[in-house]
Amino acid sequence: MEHFPPLDPPIRKLLGPGPSEIHPRVLTALARPTVGHLDPWYLQLMDQTQRALRSVMQTQNRMTFAVSATGSAGMEAAVVNLIEPGDRMLVCVNGVFGARMCDVAERAGAAVTRIDRPWGETFAPEEVAAAIDRVRPKAVGIVQAETSTGAHQPVDEIARIARDAGCLLVIDAVTALGGVPVETDRWQADVVYSGSQKCLSCPPGLAPISFSERAVEAVQRRKTKVASWYLDISLLANYWGSDRAYHHTAPINMTYALYEALRIVLEEGLENAFRRHLRNHRALGAGLEALGIRFAAEEGRRLPMLNAVVIPDGIDDLQVRKGLLERYGIEIGGGLGAFKGRVWRIGLMGYGSQKANVYLVLAALEELLAEQNCAFSRGSSVAAAAAAYG
Amino acid sequence: MEHFPPLDPPIRKLLGPGPSEIHPRVLTALARPTVGHLDPWYLQLMDQTQRALRSVMQTQNRMTFAVSATGSAGMEAAVVNLIEPGDRMLVCVNGVFGARMCDVAERAGAAVTRIDRPWGETFAPEEVAAAIDRVRPKAVGIVQAETSTGAHQPVDEIARIARDAGCLLVIDAVTALGGVPVETDRWQADVVYSGSQKCLSCPPGLAPISFSERAVEAVQRRKTKVASWYLDISLLANYWGSDRAYHHTAPINMTYALYEALRIVLEEGLENAFRRHLRNHRALGAGLEALGIRFAAEEGRRLPMLNAVVIPDGIDDLQVRKGLLERYGIEIGGGLGAFKGRVWRIGLMGYGSQKANVYLVLAALEELLAEQNCAFSRGSSVAAAAAAYG
Repeated sequence: MEHFPPLDPPIRKLLGPGPSEIHPRVLTALARPTVGHLDPWYLQLMDQTQRALRSVMQTQNRMTFAVSATGSAGMEAAVVNLIEPGDRMLVCVNGVFGARMCDVAERAGAAVTRIDRPWGETFAPEEVAAAIDRVRPKAVGIVQAETSTGAHQPVDEIARIARDAGCLLVIDAVTALGGVPVETDRWQADVVYSGSQKCLSCPPGLAPISFSERAVEAVQRRKTKVASWYLDISLLANYWGSDRAYHHTAPINMTYALYEALRIVLEEGLENAFRRHLRNHRALGAGLEALGIRFAAEEGRRLPMLNAVVIPDGIDDLQVRKGLLERYGIEIGGGLGAFKGRVWRIGLMGYGSQKANVYLVLAALEELLAEQNCAFSRGSSVAAAAAAYG
Repeated sequence: MEHFPPLDPPIRKLLGPGPSEIHPRVLTALARPTVGHLDPWYLQLMDQTQRALRSVMQTQNRMTFAVSATGSAGMEAAVVNLIEPGDRMLVCVNGVFGARMCDVAERAGAAVTRIDRPWGETFAPEEVAAAIDRVRPKAVGIVQAETSTGAHQPVDEIARIARDAGCLLVIDAVTALGGVPVETDRWQADVVYSGSQKCLSCPPGLAPISFSERAVEAVQRRKTKVASWYLDISLLANYWGSDRAYHHTAPINMTYALYEALRIVLEEGLENAFRRHLRNHRALGAGLEALGIRFAAEEGRRLPMLNAVVIPDGIDDLQVRKGLLERYGIEIGGGLGAFKGRVWRIGLMGYGSQKANVYLVLAALEELLAEQNCAFSRGSSVAAAAAAYG
């Protein structure tokens, strides 16, 4: 037999764009004994998980559940359920994930109109309003937390505009959920989806999603079947709804982990979690500023959990990231797409958003930068972060 | 805050249609610390997992990997990649999963022709050959191990016929893999997919899948994009292939579990595993026969890992299954579709295929049957099973 070595993963500090650092309680939950997917106890756990998801997603939407796949499948579930071939969809693109939504929508047969902002910027309500006026789309898609740029898109006003125009609003909250307010009901958003591996600090593998009643009705009014059997919410509703009819075999242990992760978020309280993310983000920002490193996203529109920063001139991207990984076990993210080689993405997500991690990543970065360029003085960044904590 | 009780799953003996009993080593692997999905160590683990999958699936196919979702998504991945709108697909239906494949294919735009056999029976090569002659389909779909009926479909000869006719052959090996031979290359099958939660004894959440070079070329020749972004193997090939380009965030910990599960299968050896499944199936069958319980699938076509048996007259289905669960923590499966209320499905899958489980489920069933009808004598079934072990 060919040799397959025992599994022995290295211990990492996950300070990249996700997966984030996993709370130890979540890993323990993950390994609890598996039960059947129609076990009475599991059906109850599904109920509890749905209730916990509604709390975290700030919604009363009945169709709030977890797609049995990763965050990108959440995006696909949102789009393929709402869109029938020929439907018009407007997508706001200011990074990788907006562009991905265009691709997903085109594959679903949508006539896609995209509007663009430069990477790192966000959309003003007026430009979205103008595009809606022009296109009259059935659905509008926007990314609240653009993981490729660190930009925080305000969606409050855009949601109102979409609603007034009678459009269905799809919000990508993959990186947002648990780190900044995702106010599904207050915004009257129609589909909001996320991923388990960002600010919920759960391993990747599930995509929390919520459909408004209006969205569910739109799915029920479809003339064509949803192209994906696996993601069809009219089928999923029978499993996650009151019937508990067999659809597919749910990823039982991942549900354990998600439930435990949601409990941890709710124990802390959403407002406390948001404040903690903001405090650590500001301290990290002060430390980075002391190093002369600037953010990729515009001021006032920066995500607290995903700090995308411009790599200083003359610094070797790969060498720094390799040094972080090999010396400290720290993972930060490189740039994606237009930002490849130009940007680092430092995640302080969920359980990973801790003072200890802020100090650690600053101290480690400083050391590596100073090695490449002696203009980077040692010690300044941690002091600046400490001062920001006050 | 609303109360969310601590996670405390009951301990079950999973002797149903899956998820199967999980090997303790697999649960331990599942809870190992999460790493990033582009971590050099994780990329290596993906390589090793692909190599292990190729061994278990008996193939050299380069595009052998695990879909980041459950077994049904494996079916969807097989179909949506091969089928373009208007393509003809022939599907052989003798249970729930064949019927599901028709639905999936229709949603992908296929012109589906289905041929049917009564539940519990299997297809003869001649009838598939005649249908291929008549329909001239691009693809033929067949279920090797029909989990709803316990029927074992021989695919060897049918594969030859499909190949000679120039059709792409899709084989559902969800329940088969690891329990009976799945000879992907010898059959020259084009797409074979499975699930992690059957004879691999891993929690649900991943769908092993293998595409032949011929299938990959068919995908490359498509005129239209694959309807699903998430399942498009031309994109997935860049992540699972040599580029390791970011596609979606892989379910890291589930990959740990699958890798460990595959290691366990390969340590035992496929042939040994198949023999073990057969031995325990025969002993269970002898025990059930002593109780006067007969199989739903025809003689000579019974799956060793999924024993679908007809519920004896006068016996209350739910009361027996409730008794098994509450008194012994044993889960067996009820009937699906046409077999609802008429059939039990006793799984002896992977790690769960053990002499101890055969004796336990027989003894427990006997007790519950005797309580409902004193004609069921006590003690006979375990003795019969013991005799079958020899």
